[in-house]
Amino acid sequence: MSARAKPEAKQRPQAGGGGELSLIQHIDARAKGAPSPGLRLGIGDDCAILRSRPGEEIVVTTDLSLEGRHFRRDWHPAASIGHRALARGLSDIAAMGARPLAAFLSLALPAAVAQNALWLDSFLDGLLTLAKLHGVPLAGGDTSEAPGDTVLADIVLLGAAPAGRALRRSTAHPGDLLYCTGALGGASAELAALAANPQSLATAKPDGTHPHLFPRPRLAVGQTLLRKKLATACIDLSDGLSTDLAHLCEASGVAAEIDAHALPLHPLTEGGLLAALNGGEDYELLFTARPSTRIPRSIAGVPIIRIGRITAHRPRASLMALIDPEGRRTPLQPRGWEHFRKA
Amino acid sequence: MSARAKPEAKQRPQAGGGGELSLIQHIDARAKGAPSPGLRLGIGDDCAILRSRPGEEIVVTTDLSLEGRHFRRDWHPAASIGHRALARGLSDIAAMGARPLAAFLSLALPAAVAQNALWLDSFLDGLLTLAKLHGVPLAGGDTSEAPGDTVLADIVLLGAAPAGRALRRSTAHPGDLLYCTGALGGASAELAALAANPQSLATAKPDGTHPHLFPRPRLAVGQTLLRKKLATACIDLSDGLSTDLAHLCEASGVAAEIDAHALPLHPLTEGGLLAALNGGEDYELLFTARPSTRIPRSIAGVPIIRIGRITAHRPRASLMALIDPEGRRTPLQPRGWEHFRKA
Repeated sequence: MSARAKPEAKQRPQAGGGGELSLIQHIDARAKGAPSPGLRLGIGDDCAILRSRPGEEIVVTTDLSLEGRHFRRDWHPAASIGHRALARGLSDIAAMGARPLAAFLSLALPAAVAQNALWLDSFLDGLLTLAKLHGVPLAGGDTSEAPGDTVLADIVLLGAAPAGRALRRSTAHPGDLLYCTGALGGASAELAALAANPQSLATAKPDGTHPHLFPRPRLAVGQTLLRKKLATACIDLSDGLSTDLAHLCEASGVAAEIDAHALPLHPLTEGGLLAALNGGEDYELLFTARPSTRIPRSIAGVPIIRIGRITAHRPRASLMALIDPEGRRTPLQPRGWEHFRKA
Repeated sequence: MSARAKPEAKQRPQAGGGGELSLIQHIDARAKGAPSPGLRLGIGDDCAILRSRPGEEIVVTTDLSLEGRHFRRDWHPAASIGHRALARGLSDIAAMGARPLAAFLSLALPAAVAQNALWLDSFLDGLLTLAKLHGVPLAGGDTSEAPGDTVLADIVLLGAAPAGRALRRSTAHPGDLLYCTGALGGASAELAALAANPQSLATAKPDGTHPHLFPRPRLAVGQTLLRKKLATACIDLSDGLSTDLAHLCEASGVAAEIDAHALPLHPLTEGGLLAALNGGEDYELLFTARPSTRIPRSIAGVPIIRIGRITAHRPRASLMALIDPEGRRTPLQPRGWEHFRKA
C-alpha cells in the first residue's frame, strides 16, 4: 500500500463522518475485526504481511469494478457495489478451491463521493459484511481522489491452497461429466428489474434472494471439491455459462455438450434458457468430474446439478453443443458477456 | 484476475498492433519471459498461483497510478508511466527488505488509448523492462475500458521475506541513527523541468539519470539490510523525507533529528534543502540502525548516508527537528506530499 494514500486522504474532511479521520484511517478502523491467523500485519506499513500454512501455495486475483461499466451509482445501492466488488474476487478464489487469506482494496473516489459519509459507509458495510461472512480481513490497499466523476475500485484477493492441488480450468478430460452449482440466470434477471425500476431494489439486503445485487461466492463448495478430490477442473460463472464453458474448453483442449433440459433456472429468470446460458454474473461454479466420481446432490447447502459432459475436441466441429430433450444437437456460441452488455 | 477481462478486451481491435490479439492476450504475450521459480501459474486462469520458500511470509502492496494525479500523458513518455507504476510497488517491497515474487496489473484504458498500439507497447516496455531487471514476472491482472478519458493503473506487488523478519516502519528506537540511500530532491527537480518543457524529456531512457521519469527502487539495499540485520526500521521515501520520516516516527512512537548539512542533494536539485526534505518520489530508503551497528558507505553500489538520529518523543515537543551546522534546532513539519502537489 502507498504511504501516499494518507496525505491524499487527509484532504477529505470527515470521510465517513469520523471527524478528522482520514479515508484510509476510516477504512482501517472499519476493517478491524476478529484476529485473522493468516494476517501478520495489516494496514499501516509499506506492505501487509501474510502467512500461509506449510505446504500451501498462494493464489492471487485482481478485479476492477468501474462505475458505468460494472455498476451504476443511480441503480446500485452502495452496499451492493461494495459487496459485488469483493464477491468477484472471492468467486475467483472459490474457483481455485482455495481458502481466502486477505483482501486489498484500491479505491479512487470523486471528491463529492469521498465526502459523502453515508455512501462511503454503506459501500464499506457491503464489502465488510461479506468479508466477515467468509473470515477475510481487509488487509490494505490504496486510496486516491478520482480524476473524473466516476468511482473506481480494484479488489485484490489472496488465497491459499495445498501445493499443486489448486483447481484449474485447464484440466478437464473427454468423458468427464459437467456440473454447476445453484441456479443460473438470476443475476441478469434482477439486473433487468433494476434497470426498469432502480428504486424497487433500494432496500435490498444480502439475504440470498438478490443474485445480482448480492451474489454469493461459492467458497465452501470450491474448498470441498478440492479437499475431497471431486473435481477435475473448475471455473466460476462470471461471464455467463456459454462464455465461461468456452474458456474451460479452450484451456483444456476439449469440447462440451450441455443438456438444455438439465439447466437449473433461477426462480427470477423469465428469459428461460437464454438467460441461463448467457446471463452472466451468477458467480456459481462450473466444474467437471470423472464419471466414476460420486458427486453429492448438494455441498454446503448448495445444490449441485449435472448439466452435460466433456467430449473430445474435433478440429472442424463446434466447441460446444446444446442437446435438447429429443437428443438433437445445436452448436452453442459463447454469448455471455456480449449479451450482457446489450442488456 | 477476471475472466471478464477477455471479452472486454476483444472489442479493442489490434491492441498493440498484434492483429486479432486481445489486450490481455497481448499483455500475456509480452509478459512471458524467463521462467520464474516462484510463479507456478500466470495469466490465464481464475487466479495466478505463487509459491514462496519454506519459512517465508508474503508481503503485499497495491498502488494506484491515476492520470492527472500521478502522471500526465502530455508530459510523461508512456514508458515512464509504466516504469513508475511498477517502481512504486517495488519500492514498497524494498522497504520491507523482501524479494519480489510477482506483479499484477489492473489497467483501465480509454478506447482511444487502448487502440494506440505505440502508446500501449511503450507503456508495457517501461513496465516490463523494470520487471525484468528485478526478475519479477507479470503474473496477472485485469483490463477494462475506462469510463472517462483518463488512464488508470493499479499495481499489486507480492514479495517474500523470512518469517517475522520483514522490515517495518514501527520498530525504530531512541538512540538509533538515521540513514538514507542515494540522493534526495532529484525527482521533484526533474518534474519541474518536465513541467517547464515536456518535450525536452521525450526521449529519456531508464539509464539512472532520470530520478522522476525512471526512479530506481532500492531492492538490493532493502534485502541486504534485512539479511545482514543492519536496520531496526525502514520506510521508502515516496512522499518526501519530511512526511515519510513523520510516518516512521508516528508508527514507532519516537522523534527524530535531521542534520541539515548531511542531507545528500541530488545533482539536479536547485531547490537545495527544501527539495531534499519535501520533494517527494525519490524512492530511496530511509532506515534506522543501532549506533553499534557498522553501516557500510554503500550497499549494492548505492551510497548510504547518515542524516540524523532517533530521539525519545516528548509530548509537547515537535516530532521532528532540523539541526543546522551550528547546532541550532528548528522544528520540522511534514510538507512532502502537499508541497509536491503545489509544484
